[in-house]
Amino acid sequence: MSVIKPSLAKGTRDFTPVEMVKRNFIYDTIKSVFRKYGYAEIQTPSFENLSTLTGKYGDEGDKLIFKILNSGEFLSQKVLDKVSNLKKEFEHAQGYLAENDDSNPDKIVIGGDASVVFGNNEEFAKLQKAISLYKNVSKTVLTDISEKALRYDLTVPFARYVVMHQHEITLPFKRFQVQPVWRADRPQKGRYREFYQCDVDVVGSESLLNEAEFILIYNEALCKLGLKDFTIKINNRKILSGIAEIIGKPDLIIDMTVAIDKLDKIGLDGVSKELLERGFTEDDLEKLRPVILLEGTNEEKLTSLKDVLAASETGLKGITEIEQVFEYVESLISYGLPLTAKLELDITLARGLNYYTGCIFEVKTNEVAMGSIGGGGRYDDLTGMFGLKDLTGVGVSFGADRIYDVLEELNLFPAAAEVGTKVLISNFDVAAEKYALPILQQLRSAGISAELYPSSAKLKKQMAYADAKNIPYVILIGGDEIASGELTLKDMQSGEQKKLTVLGILDVLK
Amino acid sequence: MSVIKPSLAKGTRDFTPVEMVKRNFIYDTIKSVFRKYGYAEIQTPSFENLSTLTGKYGDEGDKLIFKILNSGEFLSQKVLDKVSNLKKEFEHAQGYLAENDDSNPDKIVIGGDASVVFGNNEEFAKLQKAISLYKNVSKTVLTDISEKALRYDLTVPFARYVVMHQHEITLPFKRFQVQPVWRADRPQKGRYREFYQCDVDVVGSESLLNEAEFILIYNEALCKLGLKDFTIKINNRKILSGIAEIIGKPDLIIDMTVAIDKLDKIGLDGVSKELLERGFTEDDLEKLRPVILLEGTNEEKLTSLKDVLAASETGLKGITEIEQVFEYVESLISYGLPLTAKLELDITLARGLNYYTGCIFEVKTNEVAMGSIGGGGRYDDLTGMFGLKDLTGVGVSFGADRIYDVLEELNLFPAAAEVGTKVLISNFDVAAEKYALPILQQLRSAGISAELYPSSAKLKKQMAYADAKNIPYVILIGGDEIASGELTLKDMQSGEQKKLTVLGILDVLK
Repeated sequence: MSVIKPSLAKGTRDFTPVEMVKRNFIYDTIKSVFRKYGYAEIQTPSFENLSTLTGKYGDEGDKLIFKILNSGEFLSQKVLDKVSNLKKEFEHAQGYLAENDDSNPDKIVIGGDASVVFGNNEEFAKLQKAISLYKNVSKTVLTDISEKALRYDLTVPFARYVVMHQHEITLPFKRFQVQPVWRADRPQKGRYREFYQCDVDVVGSESLLNEAEFILIYNEALCKLGLKDFTIKINNRKILSGIAEIIGKPDLIIDMTVAIDKLDKIGLDGVSKELLERGFTEDDLEKLRPVILLEGTNEEKLTSLKDVLAASETGLKGITEIEQVFEYVESLISYGLPLTAKLELDITLARGLNYYTGCIFEVKTNEVAMGSIGGGGRYDDLTGMFGLKDLTGVGVSFGADRIYDVLEELNLFPAAAEVGTKVLISNFDVAAEKYALPILQQLRSAGISAELYPSSAKLKKQMAYADAKNIPYVILIGGDEIASGELTLKDMQSGEQKKLTVLGILDVLK
Repeated sequence: MSVIKPSLAKGTRDFTPVEMVKRNFIYDTIKSVFRKYGYAEIQTPSFENLSTLTGKYGDEGDKLIFKILNSGEFLSQKVLDKVSNLKKEFEHAQGYLAENDDSNPDKIVIGGDASVVFGNNEEFAKLQKAISLYKNVSKTVLTDISEKALRYDLTVPFARYVVMHQHEITLPFKRFQVQPVWRADRPQKGRYREFYQCDVDVVGSESLLNEAEFILIYNEALCKLGLKDFTIKINNRKILSGIAEIIGKPDLIIDMTVAIDKLDKIGLDGVSKELLERGFTEDDLEKLRPVILLEGTNEEKLTSLKDVLAASETGLKGITEIEQVFEYVESLISYGLPLTAKLELDITLARGLNYYTGCIFEVKTNEVAMGSIGGGGRYDDLTGMFGLKDLTGVGVSFGADRIYDVLEELNLFPAAAEVGTKVLISNFDVAAEKYALPILQQLRSAGISAELYPSSAKLKKQMAYADAKNIPYVILIGGDEIASGELTLKDMQSGEQKKLTVLGILDVLK
C-alpha cells in the first residue's frame, strides 16, 4: 500500500460539522414545509440504467452524465474485436479518401489510383461514417462498457418511479425528494459536480390549487429560512403561445421566448435586434413591444393582456389560469403566514419552455445578487418518455446550494444552528472524572448534548477544544466542586462563571 | 426519444413514502443519540479519486469498487495505441510459445523453428507477462479510462478527510457519518449494491471512556428503536495476541482467531480440526481448549484469563482495558437509561482482526435470527495509508438495512412513524373548497400536516385516497357544516365521526 497525498475528486466537496449543521438547517426547514403541505418523501437509487437516462437531457446533457464502468472485464474480447474492426475500416476509408478533394465529393479517388473515381455520394457517406465511428470510438462502444450512470436530476428518476409504481400509487401522488445529483460539468465557483436538489411535485391532479400551494410553500420555507425580500415570478406557457399566435408566428414561439427572456440582460434594443434576426418583422415588433414592456400591478398586466389576447383561446386560457392561481393564493393567505414574497406576473419568464405546458415559476432573492434560487412549473407529459401517457404534473425545486450562499452572505444561519454539543465537562483527574460520569448521563437523559473531555488535560487545552467545537458551556469540576456539590458553569460566550447544583445547571441548559 | 419499459439498475432500490418514513425513523433515532454524545456530522463526496480507494480493501474488495468512466473520449488515441501494442506483443508471445512445452520452460522454441531455444526463465516470464497483460487488458488500461470511483465504505473517505483537514481539526475529533456506499457485489436477498452505513468514530483519543460510550450509544439507540433483547459482544485484540503468545505461536494469531471465530458454526471438534490443519499441535490445543470454552460471568472469565495470560504483558493489558471499559460503563449507567444490552466478553470474537488493535465490538439481536446489526473497534493506524502516522481511533457502525428488517419483523415501527399527512379536508364543490382554504392554512399554522383534496370528487374516491396515504383523519365539509360552522371530523381508524368547530378539531389533532 503506497502512501499518496490524498485529494478530493474535481468538483466535489467535503462538508465539515459546521457546514453540515447549516445544510441540515436548510434541508430540514424545506422538508418540514413539504410535509406540512401533504408531500411525502421518496428516494431513488444513485445510479440508473444508462438507457433510463440517455436521450432525456439533449445532446449536451447526455455528455454530462457520469457513466459507471461495468465491473469485471469491461474491455471484453467482443469490445476489443469491435474496436479492431472499426480501426480497420477507418484506415481503409482514410486510404480511399487520401487524395480526395473534400469540397467535391464526386472526385473520390481510390488509394491514389486516379482511374477509379466514385461518382456516388452514398459511397462517400459510408466512408465518412467509418471515419467518424472510429473517431468517436468511445461513443460507439459505450453501451458495451457501461450500462449504468449516476442520476443527473431528480425528474427523470421520478418519472421512472411513477411508471414503475403506477399500480400501487393513488393519484394525485404528492412526493418530495432531496438527494444529490451528479453532472460532469466543468467545475467553477458555485458549480459542483455533486450537488443537492430539493424537488417537490404532484402528478395526476389538474387543480390549480397545486400551483397556488407551491407559491405558499416557497413563501413559508424561505420566510422560515430568514429571507425577508424575495420575488416569485409567474408566467404561463399558454400566454406565450397566445402571443405568438396573435402575431401570426406560432411556429416561432421558441425563438420569441428565448429572445424576450433576455430583456433584463440586453434591454429592449437588444431583444428587438434578436427578434429581427430570428425571423420577426418590424410589424411583429410593433405588436410585441407593448407586451414585452407590460407594466403595472399584476391586475393591470392581466387587463392589458386580455385585450391583446382577445382573439386567442389559448392565450385567454393562460390568463384564466393565472387569475385562478392568484385567487387561490388570496384565499389561502387569509389565515396564517402572510405573503412575504412579491408575486409578480412576468411575461418574459420562459424557463425550460419546451418542457412546461402551463404555469411557470422562478424565485429570486432581492437581498443579494444571485441567480434564481428556485423554479418549476406544470408539465403535461412527464411520464410519456416511459410510455405512460396523459399524466399531468406540476412541481418546483429549491436550489439548496445557492440558498446556502445567500444565508451565509446575509448572516441568517441561526446561532443555534451552529451548535452541536451544548456542554463540555472538564476532566482534570481520575477523581473528577469518576464524579462526572453520572452527571454526564444525567445531562444526556435530559436531552442535552454533552461530552466529558475523554482524559485529564490542562484547562487551556480543554477550553480550546470547547472553542473549536463552538460548545457554549463548560462545567468545571475540581476538588471544591466535589466537596460542595456546586459545580462551576462557564458561559463560553460571556466568560461568566456561576456555581450551581446539577439541577441548577439543567435549568440553565434546557 | 424511444419509449423503453423502465427498470431499476440491478441491486438498487426505490424507497416509497412509507419506507422512507421508517428509514428516517431509524436514521433520526441513531443520529440523535450520536449528537447527544457529542458527535458531529460530516459528509464526504459520493465519488473519490480512484487512487484514494484502490489498495485499501484487498484484491477482492478492489474488484467490487464501482469505477466511473472519464467523461469525453475515454477511449483516447493513447488508450487505443496502448491496447493495440498490447495485442501485438500478445500475438508475438503466443507465436513464440506455440510449440512450447508448458511444463518445461527451458524448451521454448521460437516460431516453430527448433534451432532457437530459450534456456532462460526470465525470457519466458516476459512472454507470459505479455500474454497476461493483454488477457487482463481491462485492468491494464483502467487508470486511463477511469479516474474516479464510488465510495465503497465510510472509513477510507473518513481517513482521507482527517488527513486533508488535519490543520483545522481539534483533536479528539468526534464525527458521525450516515451516507450510502456502493459495492459491485452479486445482489441477493438482503444484499444490495447501494446501501447506507451509519458510522461513528473518534480519532486522537486513547481514553477507554470512548469505548464505554459506544456501548452506551448502542444501548440507547437500540432501546429507542424498540429492541428489548440484544447482546453487545466485546473482545480485545491484545487478549488474542496474549493467547497466541502463551502458546508460543504468536505468528499464527490470524490462523488461530479465524479458526476459533467459527466455534458457533462448527463446534469445538471442527475448530480443533482446523487448528491442527493450520499448524497447531495437540499440545497447543490442550492449552487453547479452556480459553475457547471459557464460561461464566464476565468477571469469572476475566479471572480465568488472568491466570492463563499471567506471563503475557500484552494479554494482561488487554484484560485491563476490558476491565476499565466495564468500570466506565458501570459509572455511566448509575444515572439514566439502564443497560438493556447484555454485555458479554467473547474471546472467540475476531471481526476484522488485522485492522483492529484494541477492543472489538459486535452487536446481535436475540429476538430474531439475523447476522450482526453493528460492530467496530479500536484501530491504531487509520490515517497511515495517507501518510499521517500514530493517530489512534475507535469507532462503531450500525447496520441500518438489517435493523430495518429486524424492526419490520418484530413490528416495532411506531404507528406514528407511518403517518405523513395528519388530516385531509374533503372537497365536494367550489363553495366547500373556498370555505376550506383558510381552515387548511389554520391547521398548517398549528403545525399540522394537512391537505385539501385538490378538486371536487366523489366521497369514495377521497376516502380511498386518505386510506392509501394512511391519513388518520378526514374533515368533511358540506352545506350543513358551512351553515353551522361545525365540521365533521372522521377518525379513519375507528370510523367515528364528530361535529366540531375548527378549534375543537385543532384540539383533537394536536
